[in-house]
Amino acid sequence: MDFQVIDWLGDAGVRLLDQTRLPREEVYLEVRSIDQMVEAIRALRVRGAPLIGIGAAMALAAGATQEADQGSLSLDWIEGAADRLEAARPTGVNLRWAVARMRRVAVEAFGAGGAQRRVAELLRQEAQRIWDEDVAMCRAIGEAGAGLIEAGATVLTHCNAGALATGGIGTALAAIYVAHEQGKGIQVVATETRPLRQGARLTAWELVKVGVPVRAVADSAAASVMAGGSVDLVITGADRITANGDVANKIGTYSLALLAKAHAIPFYVAAPCSTFDPALASGERIPIEQRAPGELDVAPGAEVYNPAFDVTPAWLVTALVTDRGVIEPPFDEGIRALFD
Amino acid sequence: MDFQVIDWLGDAGVRLLDQTRLPREEVYLEVRSIDQMVEAIRALRVRGAPLIGIGAAMALAAGATQEADQGSLSLDWIEGAADRLEAARPTGVNLRWAVARMRRVAVEAFGAGGAQRRVAELLRQEAQRIWDEDVAMCRAIGEAGAGLIEAGATVLTHCNAGALATGGIGTALAAIYVAHEQGKGIQVVATETRPLRQGARLTAWELVKVGVPVRAVADSAAASVMAGGSVDLVITGADRITANGDVANKIGTYSLALLAKAHAIPFYVAAPCSTFDPALASGERIPIEQRAPGELDVAPGAEVYNPAFDVTPAWLVTALVTDRGVIEPPFDEGIRALFD
Repeated sequence: MDFQVIDWLGDAGVRLLDQTRLPREEVYLEVRSIDQMVEAIRALRVRGAPLIGIGAAMALAAGATQEADQGSLSLDWIEGAADRLEAARPTGVNLRWAVARMRRVAVEAFGAGGAQRRVAELLRQEAQRIWDEDVAMCRAIGEAGAGLIEAGATVLTHCNAGALATGGIGTALAAIYVAHEQGKGIQVVATETRPLRQGARLTAWELVKVGVPVRAVADSAAASVMAGGSVDLVITGADRITANGDVANKIGTYSLALLAKAHAIPFYVAAPCSTFDPALASGERIPIEQRAPGELDVAPGAEVYNPAFDVTPAWLVTALVTDRGVIEPPFDEGIRALFD
Repeated sequence: MDFQVIDWLGDAGVRLLDQTRLPREEVYLEVRSIDQMVEAIRALRVRGAPLIGIGAAMALAAGATQEADQGSLSLDWIEGAADRLEAARPTGVNLRWAVARMRRVAVEAFGAGGAQRRVAELLRQEAQRIWDEDVAMCRAIGEAGAGLIEAGATVLTHCNAGALATGGIGTALAAIYVAHEQGKGIQVVATETRPLRQGARLTAWELVKVGVPVRAVADSAAASVMAGGSVDLVITGADRITANGDVANKIGTYSLALLAKAHAIPFYVAAPCSTFDPALASGERIPIEQRAPGELDVAPGAEVYNPAFDVTPAWLVTALVTDRGVIEPPFDEGIRALFD
């Protein structure tokens, strides 16, 4: 990548690309306290479920190093910092999971009678591991997904499931980046993704940075672009995938899946195994978060319906692209196999 | 209506609702010169093809009255003013048509040796006639369309085909207003309509003013609202309808038509006879205007595809609602009959 979304800042800090300043400015934040990371998560300076988890783990490790340097690192301090980080985004599954891993390391290290500096070192290793695993997972998704993209193809994607959302090269965009690396000469159509415009702001920004030709369109223009014959496949990320292959993802994904079906265009969903929820039979059970009405800025007195996600039924999905390969329909069996 | 989009201002002026200030402020402009009307059209203070035509005709009549009062009204003045008004929006079919009617009246009146004040009076009568005809046309569309809306229905509409776009109660929204007047207890889902947001800004504003319950959604949320079972029919306006019933309209219309079909929801298009172009066999021949890339505000370096319109093929349209009644498919015959 030609940019570094997250990085260590010496031993005791984290460097973050401030995503609220994109696409106009590429500004990096120096995060040197738990409070700063909490603020960065709350204000969406760092976003994307995997990246938030990585950021929280790195902030915990950096903070622990500072405390150890002052001789004040304790399990209490870690638990308090972990609680504050978790509360920054109550619905973040990856955030809770990453923070839980850090808590476990701290409990074990202190339990084994480790010195403060040693505990801090182990926490830093665990945060690095969480990050490294995400990088490898993105790469694996990319390798699997690139196999579905033919030379010269135009790929339509929605929202941002890219390097700006993960510690690596993304999920949906990973397939695009690997196909680009392979010299396939592909191009991308990025849907704007109202209301928060992640497609026009973030996906377009990172593709431009990497040198992949990208054209942004209003969400409502996707159908006519498809009808014009210039979309070869659609690939999106996912927030949650149920046991039958139903996909919850950013609002508009279901719409694109229906439109792709109407135009006989393959529709792929890329996600790591951690996105699958085999305990949930189907998408009807997924609760849909409602976001603030103000995001749409409508005439005073009008109601607003502003769901964050929609559910794409499995029958609209051509294949699921995971870090353990491509799953073809019927999905039940392949998804079960991920957890055997 | 609880608001007046356009009106006379004494003999020599026009009063306009400044649509660029909506939905936050209801500000009326006093237009007392041709230049002011040209600016209002250019800046989209007055918008909607029928309303622009009416506004231009009224500005010509008001200007002619001022000239006649000063003894300086001439055919040259009228031709010059007409040219400037036409140039304000080169693609406006209704604008050219309305201005042509005014030119004709002026040529005839001067040709018959009419006094300046008499010519001005005839121009004012013609402008009033253009406006009155539009009011009657909207009402006729509304009466025809309301018959398609059952009591308690939820109607989804796109962009703004309402009172803010015409001299009367609109086209698509006319059906909604008449059904509301009939006490059918209906509600509306208004799609935001990126990039210019006419649905969230204008349609929501006028429905709130009239007291029709309205809920705004992002364009990309329409599919999940439909899947939720809470849309009974879709009705949109049209920019142009070809001999076979293909419909060119605001970008996103084709998308909604496909999504309505996928959910077995009726999809209606409302338009006056003047919108039909029987000389054009089908929609493939309609040139699609591209609007400024800046409307989408994307990452620097990304391309933008920003078409103003899309084409909905006739097979996705349940019926066409016109000021001469409802046309059912196959549309060819019914459309031909409009021009017999």
